[in-house]
Parts: sequence; structure tokens; C-alpha cells
Amino acid sequence: MSVYEHAATAGVPSVDVVPLGGLGEFGLNMMAISCGETTIVIDAGAMFPETDLPGVDLIVPDLAYLDGRKGQLKALVLTHAHEDHIGGVPYVLPHLNGAMYGTALTLGIVQNKLEEHALEPQTVEIKPGSVISIGPFTLEFVRVTHSMPDCVAVVVRTPQGVLLHTGDFKVDQTPLDGEAFDLHRFAQLGSEGVLAMFCDSTNIDRRGYTGSEAEVEDAFEEIFTSTEGKIVVATFASSIYRLQIIVDLAAQFDRKVAFVGRGMIENSQIAQRLGFLHVPTGVSIKDSDVQYFPAQDVVCLATGSQGEANAALSRIAIDDHRFVSLKEGDRVVISARAIPGNEKAIGRVMNHIARRGVDVVTEANKHVHVSGHGSEEELKLVLSLVRPRYFVPIHGEYRQLARHARVAKFVTRGLPTPVEVLTAENGDRLRFDIEGGRKVDKAPVGRVLIDGTRVGEVDDEVLRDRRHISIDGLVVPVVAINAQTGVIEGVPELVARGFVSDEGTAAVLAEGARVVANTIDACSVEERGDPGLIKERIRSELRKFLKKRTGRRPMVVPVVMEI
Amino acid sequence: MSVYEHAATAGVPSVDVVPLGGLGEFGLNMMAISCGETTIVIDAGAMFPETDLPGVDLIVPDLAYLDGRKGQLKALVLTHAHEDHIGGVPYVLPHLNGAMYGTALTLGIVQNKLEEHALEPQTVEIKPGSVISIGPFTLEFVRVTHSMPDCVAVVVRTPQGVLLHTGDFKVDQTPLDGEAFDLHRFAQLGSEGVLAMFCDSTNIDRRGYTGSEAEVEDAFEEIFTSTEGKIVVATFASSIYRLQIIVDLAAQFDRKVAFVGRGMIENSQIAQRLGFLHVPTGVSIKDSDVQYFPAQDVVCLATGSQGEANAALSRIAIDDHRFVSLKEGDRVVISARAIPGNEKAIGRVMNHIARRGVDVVTEANKHVHVSGHGSEEELKLVLSLVRPRYFVPIHGEYRQLARHARVAKFVTRGLPTPVEVLTAENGDRLRFDIEGGRKVDKAPVGRVLIDGTRVGEVDDEVLRDRRHISIDGLVVPVVAINAQTGVIEGVPELVARGFVSDEGTAAVLAEGARVVANTIDACSVEERGDPGLIKERIRSELRKFLKKRTGRRPMVVPVVMEI
Repeated sequence: MSVYEHAATAGVPSVDVVPLGGLGEFGLNMMAISCGETTIVIDAGAMFPETDLPGVDLIVPDLAYLDGRKGQLKALVLTHAHEDHIGGVPYVLPHLNGAMYGTALTLGIVQNKLEEHALEPQTVEIKPGSVISIGPFTLEFVRVTHSMPDCVAVVVRTPQGVLLHTGDFKVDQTPLDGEAFDLHRFAQLGSEGVLAMFCDSTNIDRRGYTGSEAEVEDAFEEIFTSTEGKIVVATFASSIYRLQIIVDLAAQFDRKVAFVGRGMIENSQIAQRLGFLHVPTGVSIKDSDVQYFPAQDVVCLATGSQGEANAALSRIAIDDHRFVSLKEGDRVVISARAIPGNEKAIGRVMNHIARRGVDVVTEANKHVHVSGHGSEEELKLVLSLVRPRYFVPIHGEYRQLARHARVAKFVTRGLPTPVEVLTAENGDRLRFDIEGGRKVDKAPVGRVLIDGTRVGEVDDEVLRDRRHISIDGLVVPVVAINAQTGVIEGVPELVARGFVSDEGTAAVLAEGARVVANTIDACSVEERGDPGLIKERIRSELRKFLKKRTGRRPMVVPVVMEI
Repeated sequence: MSVYEHAATAGVPSVDVVPLGGLGEFGLNMMAISCGETTIVIDAGAMFPETDLPGVDLIVPDLAYLDGRKGQLKALVLTHAHEDHIGGVPYVLPHLNGAMYGTALTLGIVQNKLEEHALEPQTVEIKPGSVISIGPFTLEFVRVTHSMPDCVAVVVRTPQGVLLHTGDFKVDQTPLDGEAFDLHRFAQLGSEGVLAMFCDSTNIDRRGYTGSEAEVEDAFEEIFTSTEGKIVVATFASSIYRLQIIVDLAAQFDRKVAFVGRGMIENSQIAQRLGFLHVPTGVSIKDSDVQYFPAQDVVCLATGSQGEANAALSRIAIDDHRFVSLKEGDRVVISARAIPGNEKAIGRVMNHIARRGVDVVTEANKHVHVSGHGSEEELKLVLSLVRPRYFVPIHGEYRQLARHARVAKFVTRGLPTPVEVLTAENGDRLRFDIEGGRKVDKAPVGRVLIDGTRVGEVDDEVLRDRRHISIDGLVVPVVAINAQTGVIEGVPELVARGFVSDEGTAAVLAEGARVVANTIDACSVEERGDPGLIKERIRSELRKFLKKRTGRRPMVVPVVMEI
């Protein structure tokens, strides 16, 4: 049974928990906890837009909730360094009247990102076991395992009782770095009594247990054994364990490792500096040196596992990368799952690679990827250990939250006091006071769309709220491309709305249409056959042109018809 | 070793094989075989457009190749009744100067489709083992197993040797109807000597063996045992075996079966009439009667497993179906894989269902689906049995064809004459003559985009080549919707290009913007939160309005910004 006993005294201040993102959606994970005049925020995630939302580079939670708490945000607490937990940090910092807390690796990766924004917040490095007081709250950090090292859950002791935020986790029984999930501390917390647990729901719809990161070693060893040429492994730059496995195999099989793509280079440097990635002397080479080594002596770790048009793997696939090219006998491994919505783009990249005579390995044909999130049985385990009074599923679309709620009731049905599930969505204010825990009302939440953060694409970084698209208008380039030949059919057209140029709108649009035609002419046939790539090129070139020519930055939404 | 010996005599007429669709893409499967003045076509598939191609309902292969062979098309041969093999039949029939050949179930389903088009071609029903002469060709049909009954491979005896087209298949060792894959005939053909095999490549990138259709029985039995309320199973209407499993369990567990959704109703009727689906007396009820039975006494078989906006499951999910609604305790099963590109739409449907308090089961959490296409080991098996002189991978994007080529070389590497792989793409003319088999040149191929075949949406059916979009122009409605509240932000705008109305374009567009606003107002909050549904509604209403008001049918491309 839950051993939680309620703070029986009246007059103890109430505690409000407000999820600002990540409940009812994937990404944008963010949660505010307030008591009296003190607010802390756990995580500040971002998400990348779907193709539904062209003209936008990044989405972060609306921070109106914090606007109403000027000076009261005393801590920004980060569980780990994935974009869906830290991508929004630059936008939260202006609200922060205190320090940012995270483990060494988390802070290392965040600080790299903050340099681009010229932000230097006060930071406090924490370790599992660290205890920190912030106003009425006492925070403690507990080691959890995930797809990257140095991840923590956060315990928040409040006047009303103990809150436990799991962060993202799986229960990896054989973590590569030996830093195990602290099951004992979870069990102790369960014995002490936990008022409410906020638990990752990402993989609740997967049966059984998620495997250990170490599981992929066998498949990669087989790939190293059997590949005659170069090996290119595409994975998330934050998957440090995956990088370590490849580096170790490279050393064992006498191959050099090159990190290819900006995120991969940066993250590998940070992880090495902080001791989370160990690259033996002489094993690493620069991406620009790949060309000077025999193919069979090289393995590249590249960005682009989601088929992103500008990432290393996409450029390599169409033979348009500065340093890395593919030849027959090489092997490409996509060591990541497809984030829903990216399947088509990834498939196109795989086709390009196949055209170079190169075999592509994915998790469909070899066990080269394992998820970082716990499956149903792991989530049940954590519930059984913690058996909180209230249970709040977080990190998922509505169906995951609903399923997690169902599972939680099932797991605790035999207890004298079964867990009470609060299925909350973004903005639901959960209040804990003498009456217990419940939804009381709705706080302001939403999304802010950010445009222009891609480095190198625009001359300065602009934070813009895209809700008012009428400011600079909309331009829709319409192009018909023959899917078989890659030839443009007819003439590209530019459709505009709310876009006005001082120099004469019609003339600018006519010139813009020529820019589009020239952009397509300059592309290879392979690029032209790939709507994802060609749209990104058209969008990028046309935005540059319009900005330069008119000073305006209308939203550019390319319509490419494959015919 | 391959026992194939070449027709050594000069003067024997050459045979040309031209894939017109399905090589380098999924869907649109179609292949022409010509000798002298006789051409036959195997399959005539269609594909459904991605969201990249709004304003289009169906895509079929360009038939320019047949235009150049007036009166010479003597047979249209169908391997089975999936849309990607028969969807283009109505557009091929005008070229046909002979009969259409298929098994009973295939012809049954095709003829239902042809009634909509008021087409009545000459048909010849074939059975496995049937032999038919057409000019220089002799055709034989061989039983294969797939996700639906009555599927065949096609043997084409030509003056140059034997061609074998596998159709779609897996090797189901325990087919529900006892009609096994004819491994013996494949082995005999291999012993006789096969000039060229054209083989399904869909699942070449999956390890091991694909399971039998019978495998899902256990999971469904568990679902029938444990579900308190109504069960709704969404699957492809053509998956007759799947329907049979559900019907049998319904009879066993004393539930009534209702077929819900047009395709499901039609296909179940055809399959019953022809003896491929057996529904015990008293088990079946009409969809309109579902409401009169207690939830625990009903199972619905519904269309919409791909999250299609207008299909039964989508309407049920948002409580907008005429006859079927969901309540807590009911269970929804999505018994199909997500076709790449549909993941997001399916996820949204699942969220809507979860909001009704209803559990959704998919292949991720129970074994409720099995593929209809053979995995790597089955494809190897067929290769080992047939060991043709030439091997042509078909049915796949380039990466599948390339991987199948690689596997074929590996499987036959030990033979004195390893298979020679011809990795062809659409339009590659493969010639077989005294010099052997090879690509000689490129025949005209392409895609034709078809608009307006959705029954009930437009007043007449119009076949249009969308390559000339300038005819009626383009209208882009732009709407911003708050993802949290479902409220429209600002006013919908209509952007037009090449669209002119006699009555005054500006006035029509202003009125059209009001139509869009009204359409959205009329939608439920759930619909507004779903870009797929709302786009489809806007597109449909605006097209109706523009057609009625101006007589024109511009392409309508909604841009919905979730903010």
C-alpha cells in the first residue's frame, strides 16, 4: 500500500504543479512547481516543427505563466540534455531569478547552446544524491538510465509532501558506464511515502522491457567484421553511449573514427572533455581527413538519422558532402528510430544511398538501435517501487497518457489505497493542499514558433512570434517537377499574400520566381527527385533573396508537385 | 545451378518487358510484356497521394507506352485485388483489345469498382493451374499466399523462354483456407529452367520469416476474452483472412459482427458471395443496428486503419459516425501496419479514441497484425527454388530493389551460373533475345494524377491530368488555429493564382474565405485540433463552393498552421 500520509495540519501552504508542455504532445517538456512566492521549473524543452508548419525552425512553450510570476522563478532544473528537455532554455533564462541546475554533461551541452545566444546564466552542477534548498522546496537528484549518460530524476520535497519527477528513463540493468538506475533510492522514497509521481510515458504502448544500450554491440560487431569499405553510422549526436560503442569497436578493428556534422562534432568534444566519452589516442580523425584514409580504415559517426535535409547523412547520400563520399562496398547504418513523420524523408535518403551501390542497415534488418525509454514492464516496476498517492503520466500524446493511467490503476489495484491518477494536459493546474490533489483550473499555455535560429542561414537570430503572420506576409512558390526526369514542368510561380515590397511587389515576385528556377537548375537530378530536399533549398534561397531585396521576411511555404 | 538453356536459334522473335510502375516506388504496380504485335499487361495499380500532393485523389501510371501499341494489348492479367495492383484498371481498359484475366475474388472486387465507371470488359476467370494462349505467349497461373485469398503468380512462356512474375506473396505455411503456396510448381519451374523471374521486394529489408495470417488469432482471442464493451477492429477491407478470424471469434464469443464503412461492406459482401468469407447465420448485423445491441455483444469491422479523414474509424473516433459510437470499456484494435507517411494521422485518431476513455490496441502492444509480404528468408527460398537465369526485383523503392539484388547474388553465388540481376526502374525496356537479357533503352513512363474520383464529393467523375494546373488555377486557403483551444486566430485568407472568375475574382475569394471560416466554425473542437481532418473539410467545402459558384475546379491546397 502507499505509505503516504497527508500533512494533516491546516495552514500549510498549498503547492501548484502546472505542466507547461509535453502532456498531450511529444517534445516541449516543461513543468512549473509553485509554492507561495517561489516557482521552480523542471526542464524547458523544444520541438522541431512538422512539415505542416513550414517557415518555422523551432517550437517552444508559451511562457505566459512565468510572465505573471516576475522575479519568482528561482530555479531551472534540467533532468538531461535532450532537445525536448533543454531546447527552450534560452527562452526561459530571461525569466530566471536564480540558478540553472543540471549534471555536468547536461550543463556542458546546454552551455554550448547558450554561447550561440550569448547567454551566461548562473549555473549549479549537481550530482545524483545532491540536495539543494530553494525557498520552501528541497530538491534531491536520483540517478536514472536513458540513452545518454548523466540523467537524473528530481525529488521535490514540498510543505505538502514529496513530489517525484522521473525525467526520461529506461531501467538499463547493464549501463555502459556502470552508472545504474538507482532502484534503491526509488524504493526508499516509496517507503517514505511519495505524494505524487510524474512519470515518463513515452513507451507505455510497447510490450515488455526495453533493452540495454549494450544490446546493440553484437550487431555492430558483425557490421565491423563484414564491411569491406567505409562504415557510416548515423545516430543522434546526444547518444553518447552509442558513440562509445562505435569508438570502442573502431579501436578494436583498427579503424579511425571521424565525427561528421556540427552537432556530432560539438557533442563528442563536450562529452570527451567531461569524461563521458573515451576516445583512445590516435583513433579519432577530423572529418576533412576521411578522404585521405583507405575506406576500410574509417568509420564515420554522422548526424542526419532523421533524414533532415541539411544534415550530414543527407548530403553524403547525394554525394554533396565536403569531405565524405560513398562508394560500392561501403555500409551505412541508421542507428536510430524514425520519429513519426520523418519516415518518408529517411526512406528517400536510403534510396539515394542505395543508388550509390551502398547497403543500408536499419533496425528493421539488424539490431542496431534500442530505445531510451522504458516499456510497459519498466514503467510498472517504477510504479510498484514508488506507489505514490497521486500519479500523473507525463511525456506523451493523449493516448500514451491515457494508457499509462490505465496501467497505473491496474498495477496498484490490489493496494488498500490504489493510486489516484490525475490525467492532466498542458496548463492543467494541479493543486496539492489539505483537500488532497486535484485539477483546479487552467493556466495559460501555448506554443511559440521560432524562426531563423538555423545558424548560417540568416544573418542574425531573430525570435519571432509567428502567430501574427500578417506582419511580413506569406509567399508560396509553386513548382511542378517530373518525378521521373527531375525536369521542371512549366514555370515556377510565386503566390503572395500580405507581402508588400516598396520597390514594386510584382517585380520582386517575378525576380523571385527566377530565383526559384535557378535554384532548381543548380540542383542535381537526385535532389530534384526529393521533395524534402528541394523544398528546403527553395525555401532557403527564396528567403535569402527576399530578405536581401526587400528587408522583409515573409513566411515561405513551397508547394512542390511531383508529377 | 540454373538449368536454363537459351533458345539457341536465331530468328526467334525477341521479347520486351517494360515495367510501367512499381519499380522505384510503392504502388502503381504494372508491367508490359511484348513480342511482335502482341502485348500483355500484368497488373494495373494505383497509389494514393501523399499530403505533398493535395488536390489529387489517385495516381495511376502514364499509359503512353500503350498509346503507341493501338489494338495490340491482348490481355490484362491481374495477380490479386489490392489497389496497388488493380486501382488503375479503369484507365487501362480503354486500351484493351482482348480480355481481363483474374481469379474469382480478384474479378469480383474489380468488377465492383468498374460498375462505378460503367465499364464492362470481357473477363476470363482463371484458377491456379489454368493455361491460356495469347498470341506468342502461353500463360499459366500458380497459387501464392498473401494477406488475402485467391492470389496467383503468373508464368509467361515466350519464344525466348519462361518468365515468372510472382505477384505479391509471403510463404504462409498455414493458410486459413488451406490453399497453400504452390512450392512444388515453383520447384518444377526451377527444374525446367526459368529465363527471368520478377519478384516482389516489399519486405526484403525485414529479417527472417513473415508469420502466417493465423498467428494473430491468439492476440484477438485474448482481446475478445478481456473486453467488457464493444470491440472495433480497423483493418484493410481487402484483408479477408483477417475478417474471417474476427467473424469466427465473434461466433465463438457470441458477439454480432457489423461491417462498417463502404469498402468493408462491399468487400465483405463480394467475399461472402464468392465463398471466400464465411459468416454463420445470425452472426452478421447491419451497421445501422449496432446501436440497438448491448456493447458487449458487438464487434465492428471498420475501415480507416490508416487514419484516413473520411473513413469509418476517424468518424467514430470523434463521435461523428452515424451508427457507431465509443464508450468507456470499449476497445479499438488497429490491425494493420501504418503505411509510411500515415503515422501522424493514425496517432491523431488514436488520441481522439483515448479521449473517449477507450483503449487502443496496435501491433506495438499486441500481435494483432502480420504482414502479407515475405521477409528476407522467404524471398531467398523462392530464389533457391526457381534459380532463374535473370533476376529482376520488382515492387519496391530503389533501396528495396538494390537490397534484393544484393541478396539474390549472395544466394546464388555458389551456382556454376549465378543469377544475373537486372536492377530495372520504371520504363527500362528489358529485351530478351539471342544475346541474352539486358536493358536496351527507356520507354515513356510517368504518373497521371486523378482528381475527383471520390464518390459523393463531386457531381461527376472527371479524369484530369493535373500536369497543367494552370487550367483552373490554384487556391490556397491559409488558416491559423490555436492547437490548445481550437480557436481560429485572425481571419482565414485565400491566396489565388491563375484562378479567375467571371463574376469578379476578389468577390468570390472573399466569399470563399467566409466559407472556410464557416466550415471551421461547424467543426467540433476535436476536428479543429486535427490538421488532417480540418484540411480535408476545408478542401472539400471550398471545392464544392468554387465549383458551384464559378464552374471552375482549381486545385485547393489548404495551409493550416497549428499555433
